[in-house]
Amino acid sequence: MQQRTIAFLESPIVLAPIAGPGTPELTAAAANAGAFAFLACAYSHPAKMRRDIARVRELTDKPFGLNLFIEQKPADVGLELLVLADQHLDGYRDELSIPHRESPPLPRSEYHEQMRVVLDIRPRAFSFTFGIPDAETVKELKQRGIFTLGTATSVEEAVALQEAGIDAVCAQGAEAGGHRGSFLHSESSPLIGTLALVPQVIDAVSVPVIASGGITDGRGVAAVLALGATAAQLGTAFLLATEAGTNAAYRRALATAASTETVVTQVFSGKAARGIANRMTRELADPDARAPYPHQNVLTRDIRDAAAAQGRSDFLSLWAGQAFPLARAEPAGAIVRRVLAEARSAIEAASLRLSSP
Amino acid sequence: MQQRTIAFLESPIVLAPIAGPGTPELTAAAANAGAFAFLACAYSHPAKMRRDIARVRELTDKPFGLNLFIEQKPADVGLELLVLADQHLDGYRDELSIPHRESPPLPRSEYHEQMRVVLDIRPRAFSFTFGIPDAETVKELKQRGIFTLGTATSVEEAVALQEAGIDAVCAQGAEAGGHRGSFLHSESSPLIGTLALVPQVIDAVSVPVIASGGITDGRGVAAVLALGATAAQLGTAFLLATEAGTNAAYRRALATAASTETVVTQVFSGKAARGIANRMTRELADPDARAPYPHQNVLTRDIRDAAAAQGRSDFLSLWAGQAFPLARAEPAGAIVRRVLAEARSAIEAASLRLSSP
Repeated sequence: MQQRTIAFLESPIVLAPIAGPGTPELTAAAANAGAFAFLACAYSHPAKMRRDIARVRELTDKPFGLNLFIEQKPADVGLELLVLADQHLDGYRDELSIPHRESPPLPRSEYHEQMRVVLDIRPRAFSFTFGIPDAETVKELKQRGIFTLGTATSVEEAVALQEAGIDAVCAQGAEAGGHRGSFLHSESSPLIGTLALVPQVIDAVSVPVIASGGITDGRGVAAVLALGATAAQLGTAFLLATEAGTNAAYRRALATAASTETVVTQVFSGKAARGIANRMTRELADPDARAPYPHQNVLTRDIRDAAAAQGRSDFLSLWAGQAFPLARAEPAGAIVRRVLAEARSAIEAASLRLSSP
Repeated sequence: MQQRTIAFLESPIVLAPIAGPGTPELTAAAANAGAFAFLACAYSHPAKMRRDIARVRELTDKPFGLNLFIEQKPADVGLELLVLADQHLDGYRDELSIPHRESPPLPRSEYHEQMRVVLDIRPRAFSFTFGIPDAETVKELKQRGIFTLGTATSVEEAVALQEAGIDAVCAQGAEAGGHRGSFLHSESSPLIGTLALVPQVIDAVSVPVIASGGITDGRGVAAVLALGATAAQLGTAFLLATEAGTNAAYRRALATAASTETVVTQVFSGKAARGIANRMTRELADPDARAPYPHQNVLTRDIRDAAAAQGRSDFLSLWAGQAFPLARAEPAGAIVRRVLAEARSAIEAASLRLSSP
């Protein structure tokens, strides 16, 4: 059997980049406990990136990873559509007592400046979603010894990543919380379950495969290692961590919703992402009511910010994977250690079951 | 840790009931190789059930299971809707050179006669989908020593099965091919991935849990055992088996489609089921173009039969789980033995990875 190891992994646990609830404290705490931990930078200005990275380095000597969204050329939409999509949100602004606005804000990409920071900082690993960096950038990352990890939601995307020279593939199953990393399937994101996706990706590429999607305790980690994954990437498992920035309304939703209640929605950003259903996912389900990514993300930001401040989960993006009820409110280090211990017991039990059924 | 064993399992492999491609020969061959094998009887007249069961008994001394769909009271739809839904299909009838008809056929349930056969035959196990038998029937099944296994697509359904006194739960993840067993979620079937669903179901009930959905080789079996399942139920893995009745057009579709191409569709039966997309799933996607279950199943039967005879995969229900590209054309016994060997290697490899990452 092929050996697909990643030399710098201390354990098979990877902390997913969690744009939003992620914090430098969470990244550092997970890294200190033996996980390989990412810091989500997609929504960070370059100056904030540098501050956050400095903070991680204050808190840990362990290597860590940075994550960005690959730049998406904004769809060429007319101002009229943006104004309409923005007006669709005015009812929510009224409920939250925040002002309407004259004209909708436009997205401004800082991708190139963000990538500059990644290249300067030289993290141990760089992971990305929504595409593949251009060949020149991949070359620069490699020259600096930065391990590259791309996100695939299908076999085709995994193959495309390998062909672009990316060092490893993160296979993101349908269960995953947050944004779907799809980039070759324009119509809609393939929703292939982790259990079905991971072995097919492993068969199609020769690079290491990290599994993500629906892995929220050690049983899930053991399961994806049995599928042949080199490691398991967990995000939802850390949403209730002491060090996470998950706001109170979001934590409450995670503690009370049922696992049947997540949906894949485009209402918050214009891109498909999984979260707990709420008023916004229901009321804006009509595609005509919203703008494409990244416009919609900019349009809804004032609402999400106000909702977080006011504790209104109706208007928040409550990203969560389908196993979110298994997440526990513990310090991140305790989560890493518990998950590892659970994974070991799970493999032992499975081994026994196979030898004496 | 709880011991959740099922005494009569020779191995943790269960052959799913496969209505359509399933045959008595497939059931017997899988049983002879050490799987616990079901025979799908949902679409069989009681007389055919008895013939098929007799044939299984000719071919194996091993115990086996029977499976039925719990009776669904047909939705109270007007004749007008049925006529319209049937006329929607006339274009396909023209392409297949089969006659239009004066009036749409009506579904006739043989559930009670089928259940009578189950009670007479006393199979080792009886499994079911789309609901729970009434309390009297559950009692009769138990009195005859028949092990009962119900299908759940959510934690709520698993709990309902346990509360009804059912002996074990088959947790059906979103990856699964064929009909979704949902019965408490009228709007739409929850599509929770196997990796996320199984541990949540295990935590919610105390009976043994058999995992299904997306398990198409030994890696998948190992994975669900690691999740804590007592056994893995495989259907898609056997679609290309020598003994399966899978027709030529269906086999061709399985051999050529990509794993991104399955959809959950209601066009064939009126009930949600996963299969490879084709003209019918695309062209009848509008809910107004079809009748509810079980009407639609009866309306499309002539088309599916003719399409199978004529080798036209455009008009067939090509049920397939999301890992169907992992299925192999082998005798069923070889599949069972290979999958078991793969599962053992997968667990060993995972165990190594956890001890020395």
